[in-house]
Amino acid sequence: MASNKPSIPKGTRDFSPVEMAGRNYIFDTIKRVFEKYGYSPIETPAMENLSTLLGKYGEEGDKLLFKVLNSGNYLSEIANDDLLDPDPGKLSFKICEKGLRYDLTVPFARYVVQNRNELTFPFKRYQIQPVWRADRPQKGRYREFYQCDADVIGSNSLLNEVELIQIMDEVFAALKIKNIIKINNRKILSGVAETIGESDKITDITIAIDKMEKTGIDQVNKELKQIGLNKSAIEFIQGIITYKGNNYNKILILKSMLGKSATGLKGLEEIEIILDYLKNIQLSSELELDLTLARGLDYYTGIILEVEASDMEIGSICGGGRYDDLTGIFGLPDVSGVGISFGAERIYDVMNKKNLFPKDSAGTVRLMFVNFGKSEEIYCLGLLSKVRSRGIPSEIYPEPAKLKKQMSYANSKAIPFVALVGESEIKENKITVKNMETGKQESMNLDEMLAILEQI
Amino acid sequence: MASNKPSIPKGTRDFSPVEMAGRNYIFDTIKRVFEKYGYSPIETPAMENLSTLLGKYGEEGDKLLFKVLNSGNYLSEIANDDLLDPDPGKLSFKICEKGLRYDLTVPFARYVVQNRNELTFPFKRYQIQPVWRADRPQKGRYREFYQCDADVIGSNSLLNEVELIQIMDEVFAALKIKNIIKINNRKILSGVAETIGESDKITDITIAIDKMEKTGIDQVNKELKQIGLNKSAIEFIQGIITYKGNNYNKILILKSMLGKSATGLKGLEEIEIILDYLKNIQLSSELELDLTLARGLDYYTGIILEVEASDMEIGSICGGGRYDDLTGIFGLPDVSGVGISFGAERIYDVMNKKNLFPKDSAGTVRLMFVNFGKSEEIYCLGLLSKVRSRGIPSEIYPEPAKLKKQMSYANSKAIPFVALVGESEIKENKITVKNMETGKQESMNLDEMLAILEQI
Repeated sequence: MASNKPSIPKGTRDFSPVEMAGRNYIFDTIKRVFEKYGYSPIETPAMENLSTLLGKYGEEGDKLLFKVLNSGNYLSEIANDDLLDPDPGKLSFKICEKGLRYDLTVPFARYVVQNRNELTFPFKRYQIQPVWRADRPQKGRYREFYQCDADVIGSNSLLNEVELIQIMDEVFAALKIKNIIKINNRKILSGVAETIGESDKITDITIAIDKMEKTGIDQVNKELKQIGLNKSAIEFIQGIITYKGNNYNKILILKSMLGKSATGLKGLEEIEIILDYLKNIQLSSELELDLTLARGLDYYTGIILEVEASDMEIGSICGGGRYDDLTGIFGLPDVSGVGISFGAERIYDVMNKKNLFPKDSAGTVRLMFVNFGKSEEIYCLGLLSKVRSRGIPSEIYPEPAKLKKQMSYANSKAIPFVALVGESEIKENKITVKNMETGKQESMNLDEMLAILEQI
Repeated sequence: MASNKPSIPKGTRDFSPVEMAGRNYIFDTIKRVFEKYGYSPIETPAMENLSTLLGKYGEEGDKLLFKVLNSGNYLSEIANDDLLDPDPGKLSFKICEKGLRYDLTVPFARYVVQNRNELTFPFKRYQIQPVWRADRPQKGRYREFYQCDADVIGSNSLLNEVELIQIMDEVFAALKIKNIIKINNRKILSGVAETIGESDKITDITIAIDKMEKTGIDQVNKELKQIGLNKSAIEFIQGIITYKGNNYNKILILKSMLGKSATGLKGLEEIEIILDYLKNIQLSSELELDLTLARGLDYYTGIILEVEASDMEIGSICGGGRYDDLTGIFGLPDVSGVGISFGAERIYDVMNKKNLFPKDSAGTVRLMFVNFGKSEEIYCLGLLSKVRSRGIPSEIYPEPAKLKKQMSYANSKAIPFVALVGESEIKENKITVKNMETGKQESMNLDEMLAILEQI
């Protein structure tokens, strides 16, 4: 019998009961808010055809896909020349037809196109599932991690953006994470590039100013110069991204600065409409128009959103935006979508560091009966049935082990109350209940104990 | 832009919102009962090292593992001879180090051994995650499907078996699935083989009598003959497996028939202890000692359990048993475990066919506001906030589309109530609420509407 020390693949994790309680608390909160706003869950398979995934995440992304070897005799139709081809990439696509899901957006687009005739649009879906990336594992970056996405597809209304902002706000309020929601519009960025006569450099400009928060204005200016912008263009951009003022002031200034760009003005108008909607809605989070926000992504075409935890340098904990043509890659063009994605791993880290997890999560065992032996066992099983019939998670230690061992079991599971029922308690129809936090013991009847347990 | 018709790998499935509602109803029910009995959740990675998985599921199982291609230059250290080896199996283990999880039991055993120093025993865990098998897809058999397992490890007490039976009983009672719980003991089967002097044929005998329900006694006898049993041995077995009587009568008869086999008597005693415990516990399910039950599995060493749906031929919907040495394969010998596994896919099919899913699941949208245009929108958003603050899933159609389109959206999502708020309603501070099932419209104020919505 092999006695190899077992391990798991690098970059992957097991989740213990304690970690699961925290993670489920986060997922359940996100789910509840998604559902409150009318989003319905879907799930897609872990494996997708490689033809669905390839070319959707850039060249770098293609390399990070986990490929699944064809089953059966996967080599039977491979020529020797192909086997000996020095480029391993080519062979891999001959021996692998499937890959593990890299994100939830591409499978969602594939789902929508595949089921277009059965779906009613606008289609509001959420999806909470793991994704896999063959990234180099490092602190906070894993090869298997969960994404929590909500998207609406088939509606151009900015009301969707408003609701997604409300969802972000409500989730973090429920989780008690202080945060700031940042908003921008790709069209404003386009307007800036257009106004300085550098529309073809929009991507480079965006990448440069996206680094503002990390590196500061000097570094941004340096990079803009490297791109080839002239002094007045750099000063123009500097004026925009360093302007301090409230959101409406920013819009006012920008309207005059971008006055000649129809796209830029359209972008500003969209932000204004969203802010107007939100005037009547009480947000817990601060909402800030941040003109440096670009999320380094090519596919957003309208509003861009990002949430950062306040007083903690952990980066984005939620992000999203509008993309005008999500399903075009699968043959269904001109369908607009807007969505957000919560970063469950980072949210977990924030809550853990700030001690924000509630002490008692739903599934935690609230009572353990000590096992004193056969006849007490039978008696306790009857009591236990009554406790459980109230929906109270509870258990009996499965064998009459030493009391110390049983108590240390209860301690390690953080069970708050222990019931001791021996001969004398049975005679008197009482239960000795020990509060594991205070150490206090009290004799009571079943109803009194149930009242205490239901209060937890 | 490629316009390939998208599809998913054969044997895998997408789950629509309606299917998700049903599936989550099942998972949530199972979870709630697991937790009520003191089981805590864990999760393990989708990918395990192939060294963890190989050799655990028999030769056939090894073939059914999905293997994940090593990332990076997976061919760099492979000799040309290996590449051209006519046996594709060998090469696959050189280019793949990881595989997708095939069940939840082996990863659980691996987890326990890896974390043995941090865990407190007995360790009661549950795990609800998908598994993958490269089986030939067919009706009701998928390449990706969920398992829902609960296991206790590190306790020999039969109380664990009793509680697992209670869990089975309670889950199916909650799901309203009529069922029969069958129980047997590997030791009784061993006792039978021993008594007829054919201990070395225990596996073949077990496989033969396991088919009793499917093929009938004649076929079983034929097979027993093929194995090489003599007439009196076959008659002895026939007497046992065709005996009709209640559980205690069966035990009584068997005690006399297996009197000379200590193992057989031990097995009977264990069943008797479990039945005695259950005397004081009200089960909804029938519990039957079924001596043909073997579950065709080699690794059970004690109690064997199985649940079948009544009046429906769909096979086992839950099963389990005790295995004396689960973690030995990973270098931690002599740790006994007992566990059960719910077959979510079959349970879904039963519930679907028998129409057992509740009409309204937790996340279903209960109210949609019709969108009549800008000024009504703003007003309705205020009302919507109030509805949502009660935790009631609700939405507003995101744009002022034609009423017919909006109503058909509400219909397709099975939203039970629609709120119509136009100019006159705003003036009168009223809401026109349409019951989508009856078609009746009624004018009311917000509180009256909330009262209706909270009743759902």
